[in-house]
Amino acid sequence: MEGREISKAVIGRLPRYYRYLGELLELGVERISSNELSMRMKVTASQIRQDLNNFGGFGQQGYGYNVKYLYTEIGKILGVDRQHNLIIIGAGNLGQAIANYANFEKRGFMIKGMFDINPRLIGLVVRGIEICGVDDLEQFIADNDVQMAALTIPKTKASEIADRLVHAGIKAIWNFAHVDLNVPEDVVVENVHLSESLMRLSYRVCSMQDQKKEQEDEGEELS
Amino acid sequence: MEGREISKAVIGRLPRYYRYLGELLELGVERISSNELSMRMKVTASQIRQDLNNFGGFGQQGYGYNVKYLYTEIGKILGVDRQHNLIIIGAGNLGQAIANYANFEKRGFMIKGMFDINPRLIGLVVRGIEICGVDDLEQFIADNDVQMAALTIPKTKASEIADRLVHAGIKAIWNFAHVDLNVPEDVVVENVHLSESLMRLSYRVCSMQDQKKEQEDEGEELS
Repeated sequence: MEGREISKAVIGRLPRYYRYLGELLELGVERISSNELSMRMKVTASQIRQDLNNFGGFGQQGYGYNVKYLYTEIGKILGVDRQHNLIIIGAGNLGQAIANYANFEKRGFMIKGMFDINPRLIGLVVRGIEICGVDDLEQFIADNDVQMAALTIPKTKASEIADRLVHAGIKAIWNFAHVDLNVPEDVVVENVHLSESLMRLSYRVCSMQDQKKEQEDEGEELS
Repeated sequence: MEGREISKAVIGRLPRYYRYLGELLELGVERISSNELSMRMKVTASQIRQDLNNFGGFGQQGYGYNVKYLYTEIGKILGVDRQHNLIIIGAGNLGQAIANYANFEKRGFMIKGMFDINPRLIGLVVRGIEICGVDDLEQFIADNDVQMAALTIPKTKASEIADRLVHAGIKAIWNFAHVDLNVPEDVVVENVHLSESLMRLSYRVCSMQDQKKEQEDEGEELS
């Protein structure tokens, strides 16, 4: 795999392949053809072959893909074979939802700490993790070899905290705050902007309704 | 606007424009040039002009864009000028995080109800909304003219609940369950798969680390 360039579009699809392959593994499926995988994933078989051929073409004619091998290889590319130490800044509902999601740990994302500014939350324990005040942030990051931070705080505080995280050596920010963060080039940010996602949904449902209405109007005109 | 086709790529970028324009409005900014907007949004000015020309080219030379007009027009396209009645299925941390996000209501997403199967949650009240058992789901949807549902439940239950929602007339599902839903063509699904987002982050941070290591190794070889 070393030195191979995989396109951004393929990378974007890998987590979904990883999920389906993981489910197949759990079901005890050892190998699968591109056609079967195509039916499950609702992606064309040729797309699947193109995507998975990036990993050395280990789909064999008449044999199919070795599920475990493919799952492991994709996991390596996604970096889920390594341990990532993660902290959560913002211990409200969203932060707690993330802390409670045990599956993240199975994939190597170890939640080392949670932080908040709300004194009513500081000291509480969520799934074994005590919520700390943000004063201790920098020391905690250094002591616990933390590389990743989930930012589940309101947008007003997000930029300030992001600056502190970057100075403290954080290399990856999972940003739920509804603001674009300014970070140096060697820090990666993955945004989860829930209200933008909800607007995409409303756009799609509205265009569906409008289409239907137009069809009905045309129907009336014709009748 | 009627009858104009806007490309999927542009639609995907609209929520971000909407956010920036909303922030400008709050700051009292009445008009903005594509260059200024370009600097704020870190998108090229030509991209901005191309995107916004879809809305009738109301950027005037030397005047710039009328912020309020553009905000309103984009809002109409995204459907946030209409009211959408929404329910939340799954009243755990994630469901409660959504229920507590008051900004959704400003954009027309009215949270009408919350549902769960956990008897310890049923009867609790979150921001004025009582959590109900799922037995009442169909009746509630009919009584309250609900079109949208957020699905914040584990994947094992998601398909069964999605089927019930579709039969009860739901037209849009905001799916946080880590599974692909099978719905009829006239129902739209917007997925928020958090673990896939986290894997994209880990992929990017790992490739950054690998790159850095390669550069260091090369540096050592040269020295």
